[in-house]
Amino acid sequence: MAGINRQIQLVELPKGKLSPTHFTLAEAPIPSVSEGEVLLKTILISLDAANRAWMQGATYRDALESGQVMAGGGLAEVIESKAEGFAVGDLVFADTGWQEYIALPAKNLNSVPRLEPLSYLISVYGIAGLTAYFGLLEVGQPKAGETIVVSAAAGSVGSIVGQIAKLKGCRVVGIAGGAEKCKWLVDELGFDAAVDYKNEPVHKALKAACPEGIDVYFDNVGGEMLDAAILNMNEKGRLIISGAVSEYNKAEPRGIRNTLNFITHRLRMEGLVVYDYFKRFPEAQAEMAGWISTGRLKFTEDISEGIEGAPAAFIGLFEGENHGRRLIKVS
Amino acid sequence: MAGINRQIQLVELPKGKLSPTHFTLAEAPIPSVSEGEVLLKTILISLDAANRAWMQGATYRDALESGQVMAGGGLAEVIESKAEGFAVGDLVFADTGWQEYIALPAKNLNSVPRLEPLSYLISVYGIAGLTAYFGLLEVGQPKAGETIVVSAAAGSVGSIVGQIAKLKGCRVVGIAGGAEKCKWLVDELGFDAAVDYKNEPVHKALKAACPEGIDVYFDNVGGEMLDAAILNMNEKGRLIISGAVSEYNKAEPRGIRNTLNFITHRLRMEGLVVYDYFKRFPEAQAEMAGWISTGRLKFTEDISEGIEGAPAAFIGLFEGENHGRRLIKVS
Repeated sequence: MAGINRQIQLVELPKGKLSPTHFTLAEAPIPSVSEGEVLLKTILISLDAANRAWMQGATYRDALESGQVMAGGGLAEVIESKAEGFAVGDLVFADTGWQEYIALPAKNLNSVPRLEPLSYLISVYGIAGLTAYFGLLEVGQPKAGETIVVSAAAGSVGSIVGQIAKLKGCRVVGIAGGAEKCKWLVDELGFDAAVDYKNEPVHKALKAACPEGIDVYFDNVGGEMLDAAILNMNEKGRLIISGAVSEYNKAEPRGIRNTLNFITHRLRMEGLVVYDYFKRFPEAQAEMAGWISTGRLKFTEDISEGIEGAPAAFIGLFEGENHGRRLIKVS
Repeated sequence: MAGINRQIQLVELPKGKLSPTHFTLAEAPIPSVSEGEVLLKTILISLDAANRAWMQGATYRDALESGQVMAGGGLAEVIESKAEGFAVGDLVFADTGWQEYIALPAKNLNSVPRLEPLSYLISVYGIAGLTAYFGLLEVGQPKAGETIVVSAAAGSVGSIVGQIAKLKGCRVVGIAGGAEKCKWLVDELGFDAAVDYKNEPVHKALKAACPEGIDVYFDNVGGEMLDAAILNMNEKGRLIISGAVSEYNKAEPRGIRNTLNFITHRLRMEGLVVYDYFKRFPEAQAEMAGWISTGRLKFTEDISEGIEGAPAAFIGLFEGENHGRRLIKVS
């Protein structure tokens, strides 16, 4: 198909703080489609802190390289198909990258049902919601009556973690930046308490907000905040390492100091990659759809338009700009 | 019973490095025995790095305080009994502390069968062996063919960890200080390789010694060495935090920097307190006795005589002086 494919390319890999100069807007031809492939038009791109980790070296996927189209997951529509089982108009999740068009082998694609709003397919039913669901329930194993703390609690993952924990009968404390976000967690989402990390020392505030200690800590931040949580963990406490937004932009990560508490309090800390639960995604999505339809799980999105705005929107993630899931509407 | 009870008291709690001035040799009367108690004569005291952690604050036991008899586990003989089920001559494990005599309620005591050498009751069949056994097998869940790395590998826990891992069909790499200890691990204990941390950077040496990465890391050291292991862990790798001998003597622990790897490699790190497996001790002891009697599990001890030498022998633990389990023969 003739035409222009606008895309955001990586100019160079960041060594420390990410800046707009690491990206450039480029134009490429719309790719042609080989046998077994489909041509996709990107509808929405999801901006995840994890995309930043891909710039640090090989992880569960190959490391990004300069000159490449920036990688990222998207919701896309099939506009041409040379693959069995895929027709024009089908919706798929794919690693589209930050671009308007991509041709991909059909065997790596997941069809998704068309539902409204479409954005929910890559937010609450996508990686954010699934990470919250499996991270909290499978890695964290919370029990009713236990105290759960989640950092970046006003973010897309954190806000779902907290609400699911409430649905499971836990006492829930969120850590967020600013009085407004903290008020929203308690008043709108039903958290039991919130700690404003911009306004109070987290270690002491957690101690006050969790008089019976922390049983499960769901971490999206890392570093100092993780260390503060460790000091407040109960025996046999579980720490879920889902993200480390405070660490990605540092040339040298800070890490944690309080490893001795792992011995004295028999703590368990575990990292999470949601794709490990791939086969159980439908089960989680069905349970969350039930909660959403009955108003027990609320979700907010922060959508900007146009692929050209992706770098700035992405960089803003690491400054706590967003309030809810950050998405780019491409078409 | 009239007589003198020599004991080592804590003069003050250390803020940083432990020194002989933190201890003093004192004399107290031999305690009298109340109803339900037994009078114990200490035979052997076990020196554990964990005893140092008790000086840092409350853990799974109350924090130590200055003026107290230094706490520690021992093997003791009942020399007077006012408790049902205990007779003169019975052997027990107890928190005797570093002293010659103690009267204790019988309900907190575990009888042990008399076997030779008696020292094995508080070394390989005691906390060291049980920590190695349950830490490796229950927390680590090693599979045949996997690569296991253990730090402080020439120590009492580490040397057992490595040998059990070999018995379970794993490839085993030990980290120890000095060429002599490393040679002993490979030549005498059957380790596949050893890394001399005094002679080579651990991160690179581990990479060379573990060409297929590390699946299970059993840590007795903490800090920098733990961080170096994290960088070499395979996906779904398990880290057992059993001790942190490099951290106890610091006013501010160093901790670890590489927490991002927990996400990228789905690592799990878990602290261990062996008493959690209390009910399964006989099962572990029976399996280890089988290995020892057939020569497949070797064990060395480092025994000094006299309670007065306990502080120096204990301080030496943190300088890597010992070669095998360090015990004090009291009587």
